[in-house]
Amino acid sequence: MRSLKWLAPISSQTKSKLRFIDQTRLPLEETYIETDSCEVVAKAIRKMSIRGAPALGVAAAYGVALAAFQYSGKEKEDFLNSVLGAIKLLKSTRPTAVNLFWSLERMMAVLNSNIEYGIDFAIKKIEEEAIIIHEEDIRMCDSIGKNGATLINDSTTILTHCNTGALATGGDGTAQNVIVTAHRQGKKIKVYADETRPLLQGARLTMWELTNLGIDATLITDSTATFLMQQKKIDVVITGADRITLSGYIANKIGTYNIAVAAKFHKIPFFVAAPTSTIDLNLKIGSEIIIEERNPSEVTETLGRRIAPYNVKVFSPAFDITPPELVSAIITEKEILYPPYETSIQQMFASK
Amino acid sequence: MRSLKWLAPISSQTKSKLRFIDQTRLPLEETYIETDSCEVVAKAIRKMSIRGAPALGVAAAYGVALAAFQYSGKEKEDFLNSVLGAIKLLKSTRPTAVNLFWSLERMMAVLNSNIEYGIDFAIKKIEEEAIIIHEEDIRMCDSIGKNGATLINDSTTILTHCNTGALATGGDGTAQNVIVTAHRQGKKIKVYADETRPLLQGARLTMWELTNLGIDATLITDSTATFLMQQKKIDVVITGADRITLSGYIANKIGTYNIAVAAKFHKIPFFVAAPTSTIDLNLKIGSEIIIEERNPSEVTETLGRRIAPYNVKVFSPAFDITPPELVSAIITEKEILYPPYETSIQQMFASK
Repeated sequence: MRSLKWLAPISSQTKSKLRFIDQTRLPLEETYIETDSCEVVAKAIRKMSIRGAPALGVAAAYGVALAAFQYSGKEKEDFLNSVLGAIKLLKSTRPTAVNLFWSLERMMAVLNSNIEYGIDFAIKKIEEEAIIIHEEDIRMCDSIGKNGATLINDSTTILTHCNTGALATGGDGTAQNVIVTAHRQGKKIKVYADETRPLLQGARLTMWELTNLGIDATLITDSTATFLMQQKKIDVVITGADRITLSGYIANKIGTYNIAVAAKFHKIPFFVAAPTSTIDLNLKIGSEIIIEERNPSEVTETLGRRIAPYNVKVFSPAFDITPPELVSAIITEKEILYPPYETSIQQMFASK
Repeated sequence: MRSLKWLAPISSQTKSKLRFIDQTRLPLEETYIETDSCEVVAKAIRKMSIRGAPALGVAAAYGVALAAFQYSGKEKEDFLNSVLGAIKLLKSTRPTAVNLFWSLERMMAVLNSNIEYGIDFAIKKIEEEAIIIHEEDIRMCDSIGKNGATLINDSTTILTHCNTGALATGGDGTAQNVIVTAHRQGKKIKVYADETRPLLQGARLTMWELTNLGIDATLITDSTATFLMQQKKIDVVITGADRITLSGYIANKIGTYNIAVAAKFHKIPFFVAAPTSTIDLNLKIGSEIIIEERNPSEVTETLGRRIAPYNVKVFSPAFDITPPELVSAIITEKEILYPPYETSIQQMFASK
């Protein structure tokens, strides 16, 4: 299963398109959307039809490629401004996941350095770069899966939060791919999946993916995880990350910090799996990360059903920040990082 | 607002009835049910139209009274067996809240000690006892509110879980009445209410009650609470209890233990408010408490909307156990208990 697929033109009459699964409709409907419009991609990111930090990076790159094709008939300066406008639009969709910005920076660099050779050449390079970003993401997922699986023993029960599978990436996933890789290696794996309020990515997406892959998965409400830890039914926790600072602060789906605290209290390893593109070289501590606040209706209405009185106050941050002292290891595609992260992250980038 | 009301007959042609609010329909519909049938009460308890440990005790007592009226035309032995059957039915509804059993024991004792004076006399005594249990519950709520409010300073932000208000009791509530009493004393109180998955009693019931009472309340998802603690936005946690052991283990709504761990980690006081009838004199440690497992559909379907794939495994305990070392104080109608609870609980019962 690939959450994102680049469709080359079938004939000279048709255009390149991005095909993506509408994640808001899962698990009850498996709906795919094909579009040649950057605006449709931006809207899909904003309403979380496409979600997951690595997937956002890949989708945004394809969004720029679609914009380039859309504006191919314009004069050079108009073309440049239009594609830069598209990049700005894509940047404005979601503020926390750094992969989005990292990917758009790369696309902008390719645009800027190739436009002088003409629009057609620039478009070709832009499309190539988006495909490269996607291919890198697929390889990154494979490597994270392999690296992370070395930390998973046979007969392990793993707790995971939100969705970090194929749906969240261009490839086979990050944290979830550690689980899947260990499972494929023949290790006996059992998973508890947090439902992940408010948008229920665990219940809707992780349970859908794990069940399709034949992995023994049990759905729980978010606050049941700590009770399972108390009952000694969780061996390891693995989550993803939307942004990591240079000293190892982890921004990830709301509820991650809660699990990290509970894992610390119960002396259970807490692993984070994420590509190195998630590490924000500009930030040191967690409080520097911008936390997106989502629409209150995501809490007060579950899949369209009102669950709270009207006009109540709601506080709904999309992410929280887990400090480095609660993180046992960060699994990347390059290596597994251990504390102190300030040192290990720097060393990794230095040896690049 | 009273969640339960005993309606005396209007004429000799009508019967005594119990009137209760159907809590499964809140907050969008305020529906009241009037019944003269013990079976309807038992069913309402099972499907959580009536819920909250103290309310279960009061409702069960009235259920026995309704059964006594229902079987008033029978021969003495038949009457006795039928009412005992009704008590058995009510006992079978929910296994964790001890108030239910405590109240039914009292009703059975009244039945057994008065049946020798005739059915009519026994019925009168049974009805009286149910009304006494309700009145005691109302006074208990008032005392818990007053005792607990002494622990709440001016300008305090309180986190609460599930619903412990008027809806959960025969009176004005337990933990929530501490909040309401402090508010009425003019203390500036702000409340964060956990939505409390899976049945969303916090979102549906607590937000409804607090908003109606004009208290500044903000709804959050359950896993947001720990993030708020990290941000130093919670001063105090107060929850209720469904059963307390002699050494101070607290059985309460799933998610309570999670908050207690987070409160400990962030050095925030964690208070439990519950009537002394919640203390189970037969149990010492938490693992002796039977934890009710609820139907998986409570997790996979939110207010009738499917949120997970079909046929997935679900683990859905209704309660968890918080050990005494995480509990800063237990607020009862008699006094505030402090650790070590083994000693303070015994002393309280000895001085009774």
